[in-house]
Amino acid sequence: MSERNRTEKRRELQEPGEQREKRALGDLRVNASRIEMRITELGEIGRNAGGGMDRTTFTPAELEAREWLKARLRELGLESRSDEAANIWARREGSSDRSENLPVIAFGSHLDSVPNGGRYDGALGVLLALEVMEVLAENDIRTRHPFELVSFSAEEPNPFGLSTFGSRTVAGKLTRRHLEGVRDPQGTLLVDALRAAGGDPDAFERARRRPEELAAFLEVHIEQGLRLLDRGIPVGIVSAITGIYREDVIVIGEANHAGTTLMANRKDALMAASELMLAFEAACREHPSEETVGTIGTIENRPNAANIIPGQVRFHLELRGRSRSDIGEALEAWEREAEAIMARRGVKLERKLLLDQPPAVMDPIIAEVCAKEASRLGYETLSLGSMAGHDAAHMASLTRAGMLFVPSLGGKSHCPDEESRIDDIEQTANVLLHSLLALDDQLNR
Amino acid sequence: MSERNRTEKRRELQEPGEQREKRALGDLRVNASRIEMRITELGEIGRNAGGGMDRTTFTPAELEAREWLKARLRELGLESRSDEAANIWARREGSSDRSENLPVIAFGSHLDSVPNGGRYDGALGVLLALEVMEVLAENDIRTRHPFELVSFSAEEPNPFGLSTFGSRTVAGKLTRRHLEGVRDPQGTLLVDALRAAGGDPDAFERARRRPEELAAFLEVHIEQGLRLLDRGIPVGIVSAITGIYREDVIVIGEANHAGTTLMANRKDALMAASELMLAFEAACREHPSEETVGTIGTIENRPNAANIIPGQVRFHLELRGRSRSDIGEALEAWEREAEAIMARRGVKLERKLLLDQPPAVMDPIIAEVCAKEASRLGYETLSLGSMAGHDAAHMASLTRAGMLFVPSLGGKSHCPDEESRIDDIEQTANVLLHSLLALDDQLNR
Repeated sequence: MSERNRTEKRRELQEPGEQREKRALGDLRVNASRIEMRITELGEIGRNAGGGMDRTTFTPAELEAREWLKARLRELGLESRSDEAANIWARREGSSDRSENLPVIAFGSHLDSVPNGGRYDGALGVLLALEVMEVLAENDIRTRHPFELVSFSAEEPNPFGLSTFGSRTVAGKLTRRHLEGVRDPQGTLLVDALRAAGGDPDAFERARRRPEELAAFLEVHIEQGLRLLDRGIPVGIVSAITGIYREDVIVIGEANHAGTTLMANRKDALMAASELMLAFEAACREHPSEETVGTIGTIENRPNAANIIPGQVRFHLELRGRSRSDIGEALEAWEREAEAIMARRGVKLERKLLLDQPPAVMDPIIAEVCAKEASRLGYETLSLGSMAGHDAAHMASLTRAGMLFVPSLGGKSHCPDEESRIDDIEQTANVLLHSLLALDDQLNR
Repeated sequence: MSERNRTEKRRELQEPGEQREKRALGDLRVNASRIEMRITELGEIGRNAGGGMDRTTFTPAELEAREWLKARLRELGLESRSDEAANIWARREGSSDRSENLPVIAFGSHLDSVPNGGRYDGALGVLLALEVMEVLAENDIRTRHPFELVSFSAEEPNPFGLSTFGSRTVAGKLTRRHLEGVRDPQGTLLVDALRAAGGDPDAFERARRRPEELAAFLEVHIEQGLRLLDRGIPVGIVSAITGIYREDVIVIGEANHAGTTLMANRKDALMAASELMLAFEAACREHPSEETVGTIGTIENRPNAANIIPGQVRFHLELRGRSRSDIGEALEAWEREAEAIMARRGVKLERKLLLDQPPAVMDPIIAEVCAKEASRLGYETLSLGSMAGHDAAHMASLTRAGMLFVPSLGGKSHCPDEESRIDDIEQTANVLLHSLLALDDQLNR
């Protein structure tokens, strides 16, 4: 392919040689050694002494990673711009000869990491987007739609308390008032950090994109779980991004003397909480969808003294699932058990809803295109829900959105051990490349 | 009785009128309204706005309570002394006509309270000791043994971190070096607080009493549980003071992403801890002795974030029981279950012994005397273990020691609601008075 140019190809598309042309496009492949080299190179930026990644949003390391990306884009002849939320966009114009003025096909992920995280979460999606731009450039391919690489700001939980910051802003979910007075624990104002990263808090809402500007969004991410690895499947096609439901639960028992209160006379809030937590675990385990998961991540006990029977326990209950009804079913199963536990133990519950984020369904056309391209490339795929939140969940409210997952070794993520195999990465990158080209071909707006 | 004097009685003891004399002594009774008045009066000292008792050791309120006690003793013609540990002792000499030089029969409890505690814990034991002194004085009774009222310093957990401070010093378990550098959280040195309360840190070990100085020790205390109340029994006779066993337990699981880790792939330390805690509760509940009780009073979860599966949980496990073997049996029953839980959940345990305080057996002769006197007075008694620690546990290492319990309404203690009925208090006080007189009569050293 590389010895031919795209202008010739487009010409051929109008001509009887079309069949030959399509075969040729279909032969395009990403460059695995270049991807591998860049994982290593970008992985040096923010790498700590223990081998972990410290590239929290708006830190010097994260700003350095942004510069690194812009330099790579410049090498491809692509000018990048930072929008008002400091998202980096790099545009490759579409063919103008048809005067279609088509909207953008966007793809990318994020460069920031959790503290002491790994080299793949977010970064891999940006690097594969860059690789797509490389392949298009070196093969001089002119797409119909403009293609835009995007690297979203502050996807991870960060000291400013605003995760998926960039994609939420693009989707119009974050506005100027969300920035007001926000500081990190060191007292730095978010607006100052944003300015330093290339954003513009004063014109913040201009970062929002209108639905008519976009034709599709596609993101590659590591799975952060074991489903692909366990099945030996290299490419995951995301059907939906999990809904997240969180409650604050307070168990009210009776504090009492740990010595003089017989076992039979206790209303031990911690023992009641233990039963409630195990009942919650059982409700999640027994739910028919394995993508229904529940976690009690925090617990606080009062008065928390060795010789006093706990009088009050507070915990956060979190449920994730593919659909609201899956979440609802698990919650109801738990509630039935909880009633019995409360009655038996003479304790009370106070519950407060903290979050009820609905699942984001990925676009079925994109999923179908991805599956077809993977099949054509001879790769096995698995359709699966994403059980972590992602930028694509917010982009889905704006345009057709899709996600591809790469298997995570050991299912590990958010830790220095985070890793994916280059073979799986290569195959997923090829699916990304060809799905974007197929979407470019098939989408008529 | 009050119109006759003790010298006459003693004379009668040598004479044929002995039978009449014994009946007359047996008719002695405490003054319930005086006791009630003094509970109210002493209960004003340190009473907070919410009706709770704030008389933590060495606070101004606690020092005021000491002065109140000394004034009451002075009214009885008894000089009190503060020993080097600031314990208050008031001695009433025994009869010297027989030249026996008998050791002391001591009785009392403590005046300090926990923060926001009640009016009865400790104070009642001191007030009933005072009442005994009153009855002896107003009936001009001369005992064979010297009688000493004692109010021990700092029985409750306190900001200096040294509970049962006074009785441990008297028993020789605390020495000068235990005081060195000890400060409360405000920075006050224990030695300074001790001096202000009338103690003498420089000659601290002189507060220790030798076994040959003491014939017996008897303490009245509220039960702080429900066993007497539930059975409608006014007087408890303590058979032993509970042993206390404490362990620090760390459950090591695997922290992981709360969304992407399927239920089947989790090693959730908090869920494992919940099962371990419930198994511990079951082991204690199922132990044949209802005086075997176990409590998990503290818990600490890591990393304690709503979206991360807990990787490590630490808790303090406490077991109390009448005997080392009771404690050991419950512990072993738990350990068997714990093995199975660890294996099933793939978690590990790290355990560290924190405390293994043996039970203190109360003197059977004292218990028998108390039971006999109560029976003679027509009161029902229950022999029971004390499941809280008390000064008597330390005095037991020095002399014959005994304890009487008064029922606690609602089993409540260490709270403003702490209360006991005056009828129960009166009956227990009469058992105290007559048991002391009977011991005086029966003990030959």
